[in-house]
Amino acid sequence: MFRLDELVARLGGEVAGDAGVVVRRVATLDQAGEGDLSFLANRKYLSRLQGSAAAAVIVAPDARELLTDRPRIVTPDPYLYFARVAQLFNPPPVVQPGVHPLAATASAVPASVQIGPGVSVEEGVELGEGVVIGAGCHIGRGARIGAGTRLAPRVVVHHDCLIGADCVIHSGAVIGSDGFGFAREKDGRWVKIPQVGRVVIGDEVEIGANTTIDRGALDDTVIGRGCKLDNQIQIAHNVRIGEYTAIAGCVGIAGSTQIGARCMIGGQAGVIGHLRIADDVVVSAGTLVTKSINRPGVYTAGLPLQTHADWVRNFAHLRHLDTLVERVRQLEHQQGGQDDRNPG
Amino acid sequence: MFRLDELVARLGGEVAGDAGVVVRRVATLDQAGEGDLSFLANRKYLSRLQGSAAAAVIVAPDARELLTDRPRIVTPDPYLYFARVAQLFNPPPVVQPGVHPLAATASAVPASVQIGPGVSVEEGVELGEGVVIGAGCHIGRGARIGAGTRLAPRVVVHHDCLIGADCVIHSGAVIGSDGFGFAREKDGRWVKIPQVGRVVIGDEVEIGANTTIDRGALDDTVIGRGCKLDNQIQIAHNVRIGEYTAIAGCVGIAGSTQIGARCMIGGQAGVIGHLRIADDVVVSAGTLVTKSINRPGVYTAGLPLQTHADWVRNFAHLRHLDTLVERVRQLEHQQGGQDDRNPG
Amino acid sequence: MFRLDELVARLGGEVAGDAGVVVRRVATLDQAGEGDLSFLANRKYLSRLQGSAAAAVIVAPDARELLTDRPRIVTPDPYLYFARVAQLFNPPPVVQPGVHPLAATASAVPASVQIGPGVSVEEGVELGEGVVIGAGCHIGRGARIGAGTRLAPRVVVHHDCLIGADCVIHSGAVIGSDGFGFAREKDGRWVKIPQVGRVVIGDEVEIGANTTIDRGALDDTVIGRGCKLDNQIQIAHNVRIGEYTAIAGCVGIAGSTQIGARCMIGGQAGVIGHLRIADDVVVSAGTLVTKSINRPGVYTAGLPLQTHADWVRNFAHLRHLDTLVERVRQLEHQQGGQDDRNPG
Repeated sequence: MFRLDELVARLGGEVAGDAGVVVRRVATLDQAGEGDLSFLANRKYLSRLQGSAAAAVIVAPDARELLTDRPRIVTPDPYLYFARVAQLFNPPPVVQPGVHPLAATASAVPASVQIGPGVSVEEGVELGEGVVIGAGCHIGRGARIGAGTRLAPRVVVHHDCLIGADCVIHSGAVIGSDGFGFAREKDGRWVKIPQVGRVVIGDEVEIGANTTIDRGALDDTVIGRGCKLDNQIQIAHNVRIGEYTAIAGCVGIAGSTQIGARCMIGGQAGVIGHLRIADDVVVSAGTLVTKSINRPGVYTAGLPLQTHADWVRNFAHLRHLDTLVERVRQLEHQQGGQDDRNPG
Repeated sequence: MFRLDELVARLGGEVAGDAGVVVRRVATLDQAGEGDLSFLANRKYLSRLQGSAAAAVIVAPDARELLTDRPRIVTPDPYLYFARVAQLFNPPPVVQPGVHPLAATASAVPASVQIGPGVSVEEGVELGEGVVIGAGCHIGRGARIGAGTRLAPRVVVHHDCLIGADCVIHSGAVIGSDGFGFAREKDGRWVKIPQVGRVVIGDEVEIGANTTIDRGALDDTVIGRGCKLDNQIQIAHNVRIGEYTAIAGCVGIAGSTQIGARCMIGGQAGVIGHLRIADDVVVSAGTLVTKSINRPGVYTAGLPLQTHADWVRNFAHLRHLDTLVERVRQLEHQQGGQDDRNPG
Repeated sequence: MFRLDELVARLGGEVAGDAGVVVRRVATLDQAGEGDLSFLANRKYLSRLQGSAAAAVIVAPDARELLTDRPRIVTPDPYLYFARVAQLFNPPPVVQPGVHPLAATASAVPASVQIGPGVSVEEGVELGEGVVIGAGCHIGRGARIGAGTRLAPRVVVHHDCLIGADCVIHSGAVIGSDGFGFAREKDGRWVKIPQVGRVVIGDEVEIGANTTIDRGALDDTVIGRGCKLDNQIQIAHNVRIGEYTAIAGCVGIAGSTQIGARCMIGGQAGVIGHLRIADDVVVSAGTLVTKSINRPGVYTAGLPLQTHADWVRNFAHLRHLDTLVERVRQLEHQQGGQDDRNPG
């Protein structure tokens, strides 16, 4: 628990009102009660601010005087400030070093590392200081995991993959499974192309539950420093993603595509293979990217939601757009002829 | 095995024909043979009924006389009746209480509970009577699982999550992983917002294989009583889903969205964040819901399937719909002018 | 390591240039160096070929003389040849027979089988010669797995499922989870239909990480010989897929749909339930198939990508396509009338 003046001493910002107020928890405006610190990130929630029982509130300078009866921390980006306070109040669980007796480890494990029950660690694995390997994880031979990285239960890291420091990998994620690479015989049979590249993941990357990242075919699949990947994302072989790119749930990135730095890709979006996406590109939810994007900006392909009855009426025409365009062209042609005949 | 009159005594309905016929199994009309009970749920399968070797058939009242040479159970909803008979013939496997020696349990386990090999149960976990925890599951500290709930192998339930009674959770499901919450620094770096809410799941919920349900950021993620979730669904943090809603495979629901009771959401559909979907809404397969839905009904956004050649011809025009509309407006304008000039 | 003449003796093709050159590895044109064998599968990479440091190159007959200073193997399909060479250079890891002491096996295990730590094998399971069961897999009672099949860590195969010989199943895959089958009560509650069919998988099938294949409701779910399924695919109950069909990542196939032989289904595509897709059909990425396809060919439904601003301008009109078509019809009608009034 912290006093407001202690918080601003650590995290910056300025207190307005009673700086000696003690807060113990972060909470939403609606849920906050005694001892809770809340935040106003968006003016549209102003009515909730007025009704909130929060002991103190983080606000932007322009909202400084909206609530003069309540202690508040004033800072340019209340949501970012809230994130930092929340981290202060909720540090990650303390590492409990040691190897559980029901783990199978074939590599040296630093004394500072925590290895849960049911874990298997093959030969030649290097684990950094303070690494946490949750229950039931599997780490293949020759893999390396940087200091401070935490694997939730049931993560698989395949052989020779590299994971940076201070990463978080959530349950069910699979790092370094074979890429989908086959050559086709004349008769349709598929010949597997051994996938001998690795997955290389930078520092401070977070990877969501049941996300899969395939190893490269010959070269590596690369996830840049500070990237954040949500749940159930599929990253195919040889994809390269730049620093600090964030990808929402259920996205699929096909093979050999390169995505720039600081991109944001919405949920259920997809990117087909062998494309290049520039830095600072935003892709809307559900959009399939079918060509390279060379310039920053927001890109979208999506359909309007309708009642099913309206949709049936409208979308029958989509099959015949070319005919419709031709009919308009005909009309224009005839019109042009008439205009000639009837010159104003 | 049951006689038809035994079945109607237990489950209702009425026998037409020989009520003493014994059936041992449920089967489709095509596959059914001696001793099999089949059902006709849809008149379009009538020809299959006539060709079927089933010993007896469940039919609706209007089909009562379609097949007078075969014993039959007459009931208003043959499919529902079939479901109940199938449950009678195929009860879930008997619980085999006990903790496998290769499980790691740090909490008290009731004598009626079955815990498989490779399971890890952390401290402070409460398991109801008759709970089955399949091989390799992980149950985080403080989680609670209601009586009669069954977890298939390799399920992860994270700390402090609540699961109701009589639920079924399939392999690879992850309950309570961190929500995808980050604030952004000016330079693009992401600051993680600790996810301190829980997942709260009602009674009689079924959750499919490799489905992921994130814990709430501050409040909880809530799945209402009797909901049925198929495989590979992603439920983001702070989502709330009402009672008896069914969601088909590969659906994604983004953060803080609320879905009503008794909704049905088709496969690969998506709902973006912070929306509200009313009760009794049906969303078609593949539809991305991008705005709140306030009224019951069927909602769709989808494209007609075409041969690739037709698609190329048609869809080039989609980029220029605004131009097309403008051309039509021009034509209408000129037409209007001409009509004025040529009055009848 | 192989001399070029040794390779052609094993795999066919013809050497042009020094047949005694020794190659030790396969590599891309860009990455290849001393001792590396590369390939030119597509003329558009010709410039890379010219800049490559590869010791030797696999080329098609029409590219035979493009690079006369470098030893090369000439073959009609360089990519297929490359696949075979890559297999020669990168054989699968040698099976290390034996059952890990931290595995729980309730069935007889042939001496040639490798079973990793944390594995659970229930009663009545039959494993073929040389099967590899990776760490933490679960094999349910009565399942059968053919000779030479390899399961990566954390695969689940549920009871009574059949997997052919020489298959590869990647981490997190779930084979034989319950299909999504429920009948609905009048009040909206769902009654589970026990799923008593199996999953039957042919020989030489590869199944990607975190892919799920549900068991049949009454009959079986069937994956034909030589099919290749990428990561995070969902195959619902009673689906049947013909031989040598390849399915890219994140595809969903709904219940009871039948897909022919040698089809190729692009990433994030979907097929709704109860359809039939003919042999040799290609479905483009992201396409939702909503009706049966009776003829081979390429099928597509997709939207053009636009900047968000262009999209907003264009797609507003999609809701009103029926109105637009009506306006064009009106114009045509009036035009027709005018043409009558102004006959040439």
